[in-house]
Amino acid sequence: MKQERAARTREALVQAAAEAFDRAGFHGTSLGRISKAAGISMGALTFHFPTKDELADTVQLRGLTVTRDAVQRLLTGREAALETVVDLTLELAALLQEEAVVRAAARLTRERESAPQGAPWPSSWLPAVEGLLEAMPAGQLRAGCDPRTVLALVGHLVAGVESYLRSCAAQGCDTCKSAPEQLARIWELALYGIRCGRQG
Amino acid sequence: MKQERAARTREALVQAAAEAFDRAGFHGTSLGRISKAAGISMGALTFHFPTKDELADTVQLRGLTVTRDAVQRLLTGREAALETVVDLTLELAALLQEEAVVRAAARLTRERESAPQGAPWPSSWLPAVEGLLEAMPAGQLRAGCDPRTVLALVGHLVAGVESYLRSCAAQGCDTCKSAPEQLARIWELALYGIRCGRQG
Repeated sequence: MKQERAARTREALVQAAAEAFDRAGFHGTSLGRISKAAGISMGALTFHFPTKDELADTVQLRGLTVTRDAVQRLLTGREAALETVVDLTLELAALLQEEAVVRAAARLTRERESAPQGAPWPSSWLPAVEGLLEAMPAGQLRAGCDPRTVLALVGHLVAGVESYLRSCAAQGCDTCKSAPEQLARIWELALYGIRCGRQG
Repeated sequence: MKQERAARTREALVQAAAEAFDRAGFHGTSLGRISKAAGISMGALTFHFPTKDELADTVQLRGLTVTRDAVQRLLTGREAALETVVDLTLELAALLQEEAVVRAAARLTRERESAPQGAPWPSSWLPAVEGLLEAMPAGQLRAGCDPRTVLALVGHLVAGVESYLRSCAAQGCDTCKSAPEQLARIWELALYGIRCGRQG
């Protein structure tokens, strides 16, 4: 019973911390703010997480795990095809849109100079994209299309999704397209080309 | 003479502040750190900029002006063509790579809840891209290619450039491609399409 309660307290703190770090960043968040948001005393907070760094480490690792698990589920039984790369980025867009802990992990990765025990957020998905591109059978990519540039495009687009979501949130924008829907349209352009009468 | 010295002091403070805000963000930067980096006493600093907010407002407006001027120069005498949109984003990538004040303006836009007197960084270039896309003559874009999605792609790519530069800086990466070069390759993919045997 006591252990169960402790686990619930810990969980509530991680969620409140994820929301605070997502909104205000590492330096912009105080333990007092998290304690208040979670409705848990500072004594209980510092019992579970003596420092802000430990709480941020935990949030960052949680975001990493959530992402890695989703990527693993998505890849199960899928071929190393261009569609799989696209679907993986749409899954990342959905996670960034829906999970504060994932947005917090992405933001904390950028803002914390000293890395936590866990790895940076992109390490939960970037190797999977690299693996797919390496294993992709010939004939999927247009001649002259370098898989390393596709990888760079993926990196730019995922950063773009995070930035898009932050700017929608800052504007309190109800009319913003959902991030995965927006990204799917962008992929449609990139896959088939933007320019009319393009090169073969 | 005295005015000239005051202007030089102010300039040194803006540059030091831009570098600090770029690296550590708004909340991660103290006036003390800026005073030390600029080699200017706290007394002189607070004479010119009584609060961190005023200094951040100035940095943000400077980054905006630098960007707006570069965009204006680039557009002079250019047609509303897809190339112009691409070149504008390459110019933004070069500015983000070379000018701490531009990176700081981009970062401060995201991190400061209360907007400064000046507008957010994207307001220095996004309207120009919208204008180009609106004025673009028919026949430049592939059939079915929505200019609003091209605009969204541009937004995602510019955010990607900023993120790419930050991750290169964090890794102390000397082997990273230059951001404009990387972006030019990505555009090459997006313009002509990634997929082999793509739709017409």
